[in-house]
Amino acid sequence: MDKESISGEDSLIARYFRPLAIDPGAFDLGDDAAVLNALGDDIVVTTDAIVEGVHFLSGDPPETLARKALRVNLSDLAAKGATPAGFVLTLALRSADDAWLAPFARGLGEDIGLFGCPLLGGDTVSTPGPLMISITAFGRVPAGKMVRRSSAKPGDRVVVTGTIGDAALGLDILKGGAVATALADDAAAKEMLIGRYRVPQPRNALAKAVRDHAHAAMDVSDGLAGDLAKLCAASGVSAVIDAQSIPLSAAAAALLARGTVGVEALMAGGDDYEVLCTIPETSFEVFAQGAGLTGAPVTSIGTVIAGTLPPRFLDGQGREIVLPRLSYSHF
Amino acid sequence: MDKESISGEDSLIARYFRPLAIDPGAFDLGDDAAVLNALGDDIVVTTDAIVEGVHFLSGDPPETLARKALRVNLSDLAAKGATPAGFVLTLALRSADDAWLAPFARGLGEDIGLFGCPLLGGDTVSTPGPLMISITAFGRVPAGKMVRRSSAKPGDRVVVTGTIGDAALGLDILKGGAVATALADDAAAKEMLIGRYRVPQPRNALAKAVRDHAHAAMDVSDGLAGDLAKLCAASGVSAVIDAQSIPLSAAAAALLARGTVGVEALMAGGDDYEVLCTIPETSFEVFAQGAGLTGAPVTSIGTVIAGTLPPRFLDGQGREIVLPRLSYSHF
Repeated sequence: MDKESISGEDSLIARYFRPLAIDPGAFDLGDDAAVLNALGDDIVVTTDAIVEGVHFLSGDPPETLARKALRVNLSDLAAKGATPAGFVLTLALRSADDAWLAPFARGLGEDIGLFGCPLLGGDTVSTPGPLMISITAFGRVPAGKMVRRSSAKPGDRVVVTGTIGDAALGLDILKGGAVATALADDAAAKEMLIGRYRVPQPRNALAKAVRDHAHAAMDVSDGLAGDLAKLCAASGVSAVIDAQSIPLSAAAAALLARGTVGVEALMAGGDDYEVLCTIPETSFEVFAQGAGLTGAPVTSIGTVIAGTLPPRFLDGQGREIVLPRLSYSHF
Repeated sequence: MDKESISGEDSLIARYFRPLAIDPGAFDLGDDAAVLNALGDDIVVTTDAIVEGVHFLSGDPPETLARKALRVNLSDLAAKGATPAGFVLTLALRSADDAWLAPFARGLGEDIGLFGCPLLGGDTVSTPGPLMISITAFGRVPAGKMVRRSSAKPGDRVVVTGTIGDAALGLDILKGGAVATALADDAAAKEMLIGRYRVPQPRNALAKAVRDHAHAAMDVSDGLAGDLAKLCAASGVSAVIDAQSIPLSAAAAALLARGTVGVEALMAGGDDYEVLCTIPETSFEVFAQGAGLTGAPVTSIGTVIAGTLPPRFLDGQGREIVLPRLSYSHF
């Protein structure tokens, strides 16, 4: 309940965040609220927070934290078929530290430009505890066109973008785990995997193709296995996945071949921020072509089937892979 | 980076928050995002977070915390002339504690109904640090009609709703300060003042009158003196305030008369969550009548004047009151 001069919080906002708030609806961050014009579309709203020591490590660079905090929300918009429309930022900080805030604002500004997602407002609060970055992001879709989790149909192909498991491997490296040891002499692979953990590549360029062709979609944030289980449960369906067809980076494939990690760890690792969607067989070709034009690799990894059992993951011999855990949870 | 079963977070949401998410755009909290239909209006967006030990005390009841977290955002919507349209909630918790979550959800549910502001989505994260409740709330205004801070005009009356300073007195009681001692034998006054601190009464019923008549408006959250200074600075104007006309509760007036607190403490205390607005002289009568119909007392406390000096607060003898600090800041 410390009460001080008003200069601190206001000058922090003026110095670091006002330059980023170029959307007219942000009113230069000088008002109590922002205005979002829906332009006749539905507004898609998503919110995700990241906490020091839980979702990121204390040593993670402020530039990449800013980008990750925004990108985990952009990834939700992409999977819902929505075009970014803006975001608000809540920062809980122990102190107003220029050495942290300057690179944080720089990283955020770069991604605001890159993804066309303007800063509309926010709140900066002090905390005696861990740093926390909470973002609520907005997107636009034509009325009624948000792609749901709950509309997968038996016969759909299960499709995933990019590669799976890299971010979990990157986190293991940062924590000095078995992957760090295995890649001790491969700086390039380590850097790539750490980069996948720190700076996800949300698939916003794919949003329109998802909106046009996917029956159901979500982003893979808590592990492919668990997220697919959620999608199936929401849709009242099941699925059969060919684990060998799950797309892996060369680094992940090599670690799998050496036995450093098992496929179940890659499927249950979090932080992929790829799109998981189900596409009717008849649309797969045109979806894959559209995706290719945006530079997003897409891979068909299995099929939606009728039923309410959790999805099954089969190995090269058609045997079911037992997953000790499906995904990440905080409680 | 603790990875556990997915059941904890999901069951927490299912038990406590899904029953509150009755808006169709919330999809029963079963998707990655919510949909907000703008209905042709502008969407007004505001975000405010409260942190344990900074904005509230560890012993504050969960019911009132939920209500305060929502109401501080509703207060922003009221001051901007917006009708509540929904909100998203981010909860950072040390553990999923039923004894805390059940009353929290109950309090939140009551206010969702009372203010017609549906829960659209959220994120629940674990933290090793203090509890934090962050809400982003949405309102609707006819296109272009959000009431700004920056449009006060010389000659406008400076108007405030309700009474000022009660919440700061309530906080002093909770902290065992001089007010607690002075009111040791007056349980009713203590309860009223603590209630003003814990459960603000945002003026959402007044939103349309503010939209129709105010040149400029904001809510009083960080102290009347500092918030008026912000409004004047944003509008490029100054103001002269008759401190004796600042509306006080009977309890606050008695404490002032006894010398327990000074008027400057009441003017700089936070957490009032009243509306501060400037109304053209010609509209004041009809604004006050409209406000009266909604049960919101409004008081004219001074006049907007040309100039860029900070607003001046004059005592009964026309002497300027020197304010050691204007308001609350976290840094």
